[in-house]
Amino acid sequence: MVTGISMLLPVACALIYGGDDVAALAISALVTLFIGIPLWWGFRKHHDLGIKDGIFIAAFGWVFVSALSALPFMIHGSIPSFTDAFFEMMSGYTTSGATILTDIEVVPRGLLFWRSETHLLGGMGFLTLTVIFLPHGMGGLRIFRAESSPGQVITKEKFHARNRDTMVRLWLIYLGLNAAQTILLCGGGMSLFDALCHAFGTVSTSGYSPYNASIGHYNNAYFDWIVIVFMFLGGMTFVLFYQMMRGDFHSLRINTEFRWYVGFMLFFCGVVSWLLWKENTYGLMDAIRYGTFQVTSLLTTTGFTTADYEKWPQAAQMFLYAVCFIGACAGSTTSGIKIVHYVVLCKFMSAAIKKLFFQPMSVIYVRLNQRPVDDTIIHLSVCYFIVNIFMVLGGGCVMVLTDDMDYVTAMSSVIATLMNIGPGFGAIGPSENYAFISDAGKWFLSYNMLVGRLEMFSALVIFYPSFWKK
Amino acid sequence: MVTGISMLLPVACALIYGGDDVAALAISALVTLFIGIPLWWGFRKHHDLGIKDGIFIAAFGWVFVSALSALPFMIHGSIPSFTDAFFEMMSGYTTSGATILTDIEVVPRGLLFWRSETHLLGGMGFLTLTVIFLPHGMGGLRIFRAESSPGQVITKEKFHARNRDTMVRLWLIYLGLNAAQTILLCGGGMSLFDALCHAFGTVSTSGYSPYNASIGHYNNAYFDWIVIVFMFLGGMTFVLFYQMMRGDFHSLRINTEFRWYVGFMLFFCGVVSWLLWKENTYGLMDAIRYGTFQVTSLLTTTGFTTADYEKWPQAAQMFLYAVCFIGACAGSTTSGIKIVHYVVLCKFMSAAIKKLFFQPMSVIYVRLNQRPVDDTIIHLSVCYFIVNIFMVLGGGCVMVLTDDMDYVTAMSSVIATLMNIGPGFGAIGPSENYAFISDAGKWFLSYNMLVGRLEMFSALVIFYPSFWKK
Ligand SMILES: [K+]
Ligand SMILES: [K+]
Repeated sequence: MVTGISMLLPVACALIYGGDDVAALAISALVTLFIGIPLWWGFRKHHDLGIKDGIFIAAFGWVFVSALSALPFMIHGSIPSFTDAFFEMMSGYTTSGATILTDIEVVPRGLLFWRSETHLLGGMGFLTLTVIFLPHGMGGLRIFRAESSPGQVITKEKFHARNRDTMVRLWLIYLGLNAAQTILLCGGGMSLFDALCHAFGTVSTSGYSPYNASIGHYNNAYFDWIVIVFMFLGGMTFVLFYQMMRGDFHSLRINTEFRWYVGFMLFFCGVVSWLLWKENTYGLMDAIRYGTFQVTSLLTTTGFTTADYEKWPQAAQMFLYAVCFIGACAGSTTSGIKIVHYVVLCKFMSAAIKKLFFQPMSVIYVRLNQRPVDDTIIHLSVCYFIVNIFMVLGGGCVMVLTDDMDYVTAMSSVIATLMNIGPGFGAIGPSENYAFISDAGKWFLSYNMLVGRLEMFSALVIFYPSFWKK
Repeated sequence: MVTGISMLLPVACALIYGGDDVAALAISALVTLFIGIPLWWGFRKHHDLGIKDGIFIAAFGWVFVSALSALPFMIHGSIPSFTDAFFEMMSGYTTSGATILTDIEVVPRGLLFWRSETHLLGGMGFLTLTVIFLPHGMGGLRIFRAESSPGQVITKEKFHARNRDTMVRLWLIYLGLNAAQTILLCGGGMSLFDALCHAFGTVSTSGYSPYNASIGHYNNAYFDWIVIVFMFLGGMTFVLFYQMMRGDFHSLRINTEFRWYVGFMLFFCGVVSWLLWKENTYGLMDAIRYGTFQVTSLLTTTGFTTADYEKWPQAAQMFLYAVCFIGACAGSTTSGIKIVHYVVLCKFMSAAIKKLFFQPMSVIYVRLNQRPVDDTIIHLSVCYFIVNIFMVLGGGCVMVLTDDMDYVTAMSSVIATLMNIGPGFGAIGPSENYAFISDAGKWFLSYNMLVGRLEMFSALVIFYPSFWKK
């Protein structure tokens, strides 16, 4: 069904842009339509999809779309290997932004635009997917929970998102943000092509840029701050925009997650900027600009860069490493361990320790947005955090077995793909890419990106034996 | 009260051993007795200690004993700085084995023996402490839980440990293991002094050796395997020895944690040995010997070394890094995240995910040793794991602020001290030491060792405002 929706866009893309990649894009568009339309029609008839079908479609739909989207690159020859092209597209759709391209700038513009467009599609695609399932009862609710929206379950905002009209409004907000950023970037002197690509990469917190040096290509403070602002907005719960448009500023004020989000941002931007200034890496103004940019980029899991932070002082790098473990708000386009998870974890732990040591008869009770939170949500947050940590350590072990890499790079590559960030530390730093990794390693990292995008569980429960039972 | 008990041992130590350190040890012993005996008498009278007093004594008793024990080193001059001597002693009592001595072999034997003896005391000291509190009702039970024995709470073995006779038997088992290892090492040709020091460091899973090259000093396969066996035994739940002595082999067979312990050991020893062999670091027999030794050493949080594992293939290092996050069995002398915590976490997550996705009406239900587990225990395990991860990331940030070190070393130093392992990765690897770290960094790491030894909570709840309320 996602396939059916995303079908029409490569055609538009192929038609708009010229160059030697037109043929490749046109052929791919036809093939995709040829496969996609029957599938779409097929699924239209089955409205009573259960939870297992939902999970199945969520996980394999992503794989399927990425495989089809890889066609233009393979036909054109700019990425000859299917593994590489699939990795690049999975990275695009999951809004990771991890690239295997050693020289991005030699790829023709049509293909680069298509590459950035996957971000636009991926960024809200998974939310659309869930809304399609929503009218179908509990199955929908549960897939909704499995998808990137525990935040919305948590904040009871599911009741808004439940109807398709709200969904359309969310799409409009998303596209509106893209349009606003494009206009502002063009206003600063960026070409329309660059502005669109960067807007696609920013609002979806994805991070593909048509330039090797990412946003650092321009070395322009105005562009940096525009991107910072839109990365921040892209990391906000989208329902909040909707509520603000309706004049409901109260819900923003009482939103626990939003307050923590701002707090985390201020703390980490402050510390990193201060460290850059103290160690004389930059002057005061530049330290704030580069520090804020990089922290915002990693915290919102965007992955744009304006500087090679691996050359920064080690202290600043340690803070950036920690920031990688923090995603932005739930119900946005970001991935990773959302701030709402941390809020729930901290409040739960605080209550549990109090119960254990001071008030054995007390009830563990977590409040969010001035409303109590269900036990299910606490369990979900706890499991999510623990599984993430297990995946980082276990995934690091898998990576060193498939590849001859050091353990820092191994863990960092898993963090960067699992949290859908893109660049990491070690041999996959901001000035490097994923090209050197073996095919087995790339498939494993692609799987990690999918797990991260679908918030673990959809991609993990497939391995539960009972999933395959009738 | 711990102070009162540990008081008499430095005197014995000073009397037995000669050299230019006799004066230093004798003076310290007198000072310690002078302070300790009145304190001991004072506490004897207060048998109705509440939980807050218990936590207070647990946390500050450790600090107090370490400070007193640092005296001989300062008086003798082998460790002139108080910070360094305190770090060394805290590392000894918490069975961490992290050293600031650049050349261990120049320190006189009396002081080295005292240094190893802190392991003997520390290894079971905290268990003794809990038993002293046990007869005093719920306060005792809860401090018992806060101390290193959630495994015993979990396995209902608290009912055994509750009476002092059992405690004395556990002490006898502990001392018996020390004696057995000493005899076996002496039988292999090791001097009595070396054998005692290494036995103290092995059974308490601590890791101080009187030689710079640790167990690698001898380059003797017999010694290596003896140490491996006793590290493994030191990592077992001590109550199991007691039950086996009573002929109760059934409880060993149904012990969930023990089976996982053997499984983890076989898996990690196998993989690391295989990697060492495959990469031609060693021949087959040596790969098994060195691989098994290092995995056992890190998994039981001992921290002995026979080789500089930082020169091993990166893949083997990644597995060793992961092993650092795993402690051995609860109710033993090891620290870190115990295997029982992982068992509870895995079973809890499996049940929670099943509930979320397949059987919404099911009850989350965790069995251990064929008995259901209380919710409190699940909460404790979950909190414990999450706090550990937070401490590693947050502690890494603190270390880069106090010291000019790279982020790998920063996180590794926190892992090595928090899990009471000793050596780590980066600049604190097996061939290096903690001497280069600043005073502030050493105090922070000493705090981490204490937090790790007291299983977090005793050392953390002190910062709860309600702890200080009446
Ligand atoms: K990203
Ligand atoms: K140790």
